[in-house]
Amino acid sequence: MEKTQDNFNIKEERNLSMLMDFYELTMSNGYFVNGLSDTIVYFDMFYRRNPDGAGFSIVAGLEQLINFVKNLKFTEEDINYLRSKGILSEDFLQYLLNFKFTGDIYAIPEGTPVFPNEALVTIKSKVIEAQLIETMLLLTINHQSLIATKANRIVRASQGRPVLELGARRAQGADGAILGARASYIGGVTGTATAMSEIMFGVPATGTMAHSWIQLFEDEYKAFETYAKTYPNSCTLLVDTYNVLNSGIPNAIKVSRQVLEPNGMRLKAIRLDSGDLAYLSKKVRQMLDAAGLDDCKIVASNSLDEYIITELLNQDAKIDIFGVGERMVTAKSEPVFGGVYKLVAVEEKGEIHPRIKLSENEEKIINPGYKMVWRLYDKDTHKAIADVITLAQETIDETAPYTIFDPVLIWKKKKVTNFYGKKLQVPIFLNGESVYELPTIEEIKNYCKTQVDGIWEEVKRFSNPHKYYVDLSQKLWFIKQELIQQHRNSEDKNEV
Amino acid sequence: MEKTQDNFNIKEERNLSMLMDFYELTMSNGYFVNGLSDTIVYFDMFYRRNPDGAGFSIVAGLEQLINFVKNLKFTEEDINYLRSKGILSEDFLQYLLNFKFTGDIYAIPEGTPVFPNEALVTIKSKVIEAQLIETMLLLTINHQSLIATKANRIVRASQGRPVLELGARRAQGADGAILGARASYIGGVTGTATAMSEIMFGVPATGTMAHSWIQLFEDEYKAFETYAKTYPNSCTLLVDTYNVLNSGIPNAIKVSRQVLEPNGMRLKAIRLDSGDLAYLSKKVRQMLDAAGLDDCKIVASNSLDEYIITELLNQDAKIDIFGVGERMVTAKSEPVFGGVYKLVAVEEKGEIHPRIKLSENEEKIINPGYKMVWRLYDKDTHKAIADVITLAQETIDETAPYTIFDPVLIWKKKKVTNFYGKKLQVPIFLNGESVYELPTIEEIKNYCKTQVDGIWEEVKRFSNPHKYYVDLSQKLWFIKQELIQQHRNSEDKNEV
Repeated sequence: MEKTQDNFNIKEERNLSMLMDFYELTMSNGYFVNGLSDTIVYFDMFYRRNPDGAGFSIVAGLEQLINFVKNLKFTEEDINYLRSKGILSEDFLQYLLNFKFTGDIYAIPEGTPVFPNEALVTIKSKVIEAQLIETMLLLTINHQSLIATKANRIVRASQGRPVLELGARRAQGADGAILGARASYIGGVTGTATAMSEIMFGVPATGTMAHSWIQLFEDEYKAFETYAKTYPNSCTLLVDTYNVLNSGIPNAIKVSRQVLEPNGMRLKAIRLDSGDLAYLSKKVRQMLDAAGLDDCKIVASNSLDEYIITELLNQDAKIDIFGVGERMVTAKSEPVFGGVYKLVAVEEKGEIHPRIKLSENEEKIINPGYKMVWRLYDKDTHKAIADVITLAQETIDETAPYTIFDPVLIWKKKKVTNFYGKKLQVPIFLNGESVYELPTIEEIKNYCKTQVDGIWEEVKRFSNPHKYYVDLSQKLWFIKQELIQQHRNSEDKNEV
Repeated sequence: MEKTQDNFNIKEERNLSMLMDFYELTMSNGYFVNGLSDTIVYFDMFYRRNPDGAGFSIVAGLEQLINFVKNLKFTEEDINYLRSKGILSEDFLQYLLNFKFTGDIYAIPEGTPVFPNEALVTIKSKVIEAQLIETMLLLTINHQSLIATKANRIVRASQGRPVLELGARRAQGADGAILGARASYIGGVTGTATAMSEIMFGVPATGTMAHSWIQLFEDEYKAFETYAKTYPNSCTLLVDTYNVLNSGIPNAIKVSRQVLEPNGMRLKAIRLDSGDLAYLSKKVRQMLDAAGLDDCKIVASNSLDEYIITELLNQDAKIDIFGVGERMVTAKSEPVFGGVYKLVAVEEKGEIHPRIKLSENEEKIINPGYKMVWRLYDKDTHKAIADVITLAQETIDETAPYTIFDPVLIWKKKKVTNFYGKKLQVPIFLNGESVYELPTIEEIKNYCKTQVDGIWEEVKRFSNPHKYYVDLSQKLWFIKQELIQQHRNSEDKNEV
C-alpha cells in the first residue's frame, strides 16, 4: 500500500542524534573507560499511571523511534562539541564516531490500548547503546502516546461525529503540531488543519476561513458571497465574527439563496467558534432548517475537550462536527505521559540476572527481568480479559484454566477459562537490523479502533473506570519478591 | 560576540513552510483569485490572559519566527501536494512558487515582561503574506513564551538557587525539548540536560548519572566508587536507588573518604530524586556535615515546580540546586499560551482603516488599528508604572503629566508624572528585509532578568497578583468605541 509521504517525497531528515540528556554521555563514557562496553543489558520503557485517571492509554510514536534508531550517528561536529566539554575520553569519542545500534528492540505496536507497568518497549543491547537511545525513546513514545490517548477520549466523547484536529498554533513546538496531528489521527480524529502532517504522514488536511477573511471585506455578506463564489462545492462559512443569530446566519442563508442554490449548489456547513455552543447550535439548526438547509452541517470549535463535548451532547447541542484545538494537541488536562526507562536485567557470563530498583512506594518498585506482556482474550466475545506479564521465555497454556492474581493483594485471584493469549510485544530490531514492516497510518488507526472496541465499556469510562487486571506470572512474582528481600537484608546490615 | 551555535556549525535547517493551517491556503487562494492580493493589512499577535493567573508573562520565540520568515518558500513538492487537493487555482500555485515575504514586522524583544492585550508582534504586509505566516508565528511565540514564563516563575521561587532544566524525555516532541531548553534559559534557568540545546543555542548542558548506572554494578558502593574514579573533579552521586539514609549517603561518604579525599578531591554533590525532599535533605545535610562534607551540594529533582519549591523552602529544606523536568518543559499547570492573531486594519487608497471583531464578551473585543505599545517608567526608581497602547503615529509627551484610564471602567484614572516612556515594539523586518540584530542568548537572559527586576513585587506574586495597568490612549479608545457603535447599529438593522 502506497503511503502519502512517499508521494510527496518529504522525509524526516533531521539528525536528532544529539537530542539526549548529557548524563547518557557521562555514563556511557564511564562504562567505556571502565571496560563495561560489551555488557549486555535489558531496559523496559513503561509508565505507572494513565493520564486523566483513565482506564487505559493508547501507545504511539514507534515509527519515529525506529527512524531515530536507524539514523543514530555522530558527526564530526557532534564530536567536536563533545570534546569541548573536556570530560569525555578521546577513545570514547572515537568509538562514538563509529557508533551504530546493534541490539534488539521489542515493542507493542502503535495504536494498541495499554496499561500501567507494561513494557511498551524493551531493549536488549550493549549498555552504551541502550543509554544513548534513552532520551529520544522516552520523548517520542511519551509524546505521541499522550496525544493519541487524549484524542481517543475526545473521539469517543463525540459519539461517532467527526473530530478535526486544529491545534497547531498552540502546540508546544513544530513537532508538537506535526506529530501531534499524526498521534491524534491514530487516536481516531478524522483530519487535521496542519498541511505538513498530510505531506509527511498522510493525515487528511482541510481548512476554510478565519475571522480575518470576514474582516477584510466591507461587510460580512460580501465576505460570504466572495467565498461561496470561490468555493461553491465546499462552502463552509464562519458565522460568529459580529453576531451569530442577527448577522452570521441571516447572511449565510442569503448567500445560499443568492449564490449557491441558483447554481444547484448547497451550503455545506457553518462554523461556530465562540459563545454558548449548546444554545447557539440549537437556534442555528432551527434557522437553517426553516430556510430549507437541513443538510447544512454545524461545525463547532472553541476550547473543546472530552468533558465539554460530553456536556454539549447531553444538552442536545445540534453539532455535527467538532473542531478541537489546544486541549487535544497539548493534552491540556494532563500534559505529561510519565513513561520511564529502567534497567531490568544484566547479562553476566551468558546468564540473565534480573535487577531491581526499590522505592518507599510499593507501586514504584519495578518488575525485574527480561519479560513479555500477554493479553488474554475471551474466545467467544474476543474482549480482553486481563494482561499478564511473564518472563520472556514463558508460555501460557491456552488449553488449561490459567490463574491470575493481583501482584500486591495476592489473595485476589481469578481463574481464566475459554481464552486465547496473544503476545503484545513484537520484534522491531534484531541485532541492529530493522525487522518490522511499518503499517500505514490508516492501518494503525483502524487497528486502534478495533482494539479499543475490544475493551469492556467499564474500563473506558472517563471517570473512575474499572481497573483492568495486569498481573504477573507466578515465576516473575517470585523473582521480584526474592530481589526485594535481598536488598532489604543488605540495608539491615548497613543500619547496624 | 561569538555564539556557541556558530562554533559547532549546526543550524536550524528544516523547511517548515508547510507547517500551516490549511485555511491560510484556502483564504490566500481566495484573495488571489478575487484580485485582493495587493491589499495591505495589519495584524496583531496578542494574548488575553497570563497563564497560572500570573501578573505578567515573558515573551520569547522571536528568533525562530525570524528564521521561519527568512526561509519561507514553497518547493515543487509542496506545490504538487497543494495541486493534489484540487481546490486551489493554478495561477495561485505559480504565485506561491515565487513567494517571498515583503512586508514589515514589529515585535517586542525576547525576554521582555509583557501583559494581556499588548501586541507582541505586529505585521504590515500584503494580505496573503500575513496569512501564510500566521500559524508558525503563533506556534513559535506561544510555545516559547509559555515556557519562558513558567521557567521564570520556577527560577523566582528558587530564590537565587540554580535551577536545571531536565525535561526532554517528557517534552511534547523534539522541538518541545530543544526549544523548551532555550526558552527556559531565557526565563532564567542555569542550564539544561539536553546536549542539542547547547549545540544549537548555547544553553549550557550538564549531566551525571541515572539509576541505571547504580543498578549495573554489583552494589551501590562499587557504582559510586567507579564514578568517583572516572570523574574525580565533578563527582555528583545519585543516592536514592535503594535507600537514601541507610545506603546512599553512607556509601557516598565512604567513597569521598576512600577515593576522593586521599587525592585532594571533594565530593561535589549528591542528588535526591524521590521521597520527602524536605525531610531527606535536612537529614542528608546533617550526615554530610558530620562527615566534614559541608561543601557538598544537595541537588533535588522529582516533579518540582514553583509551588513545590516554595513549600520546600518554607519548610527549610536544605536544597542547593533544583532539577526541574516535565512540569517546566510542558508548563504542566497550564500548558497553553493563548496567543491570537487578529486583523486590526486594512489600507484602502493609502489610508489605514481600523477593523474590529466583536464578541459577547467585552474583554474579547480587539483593539483596532495600527498601534504601538509604550511602557512608562518612573524616573527615580526606573520601575515600570504602566503600559499604554497608542496609535502607531502618536507620541507620548514626557514633559507633561500623562493621564491614563482604564479602558473598561473609564472613571478609573491616574495622572502619571516624573516618568519616561519607551516604545516596546522594535522593527524586525522592513519591506521584507531583516533589520534586527539578533541578541545572543546570554544577552536575552540578562535583559529578561533586568526587566523582571523592574516590575513591582506586587505584580510578581504567584497568586492574586496586583493588576498592572495596560491602558489605551484617548485617540485609540475613541476609535474603538466608534467601531463598536457602527457594528451594533448595523446589527440593529438586521434585527428588524
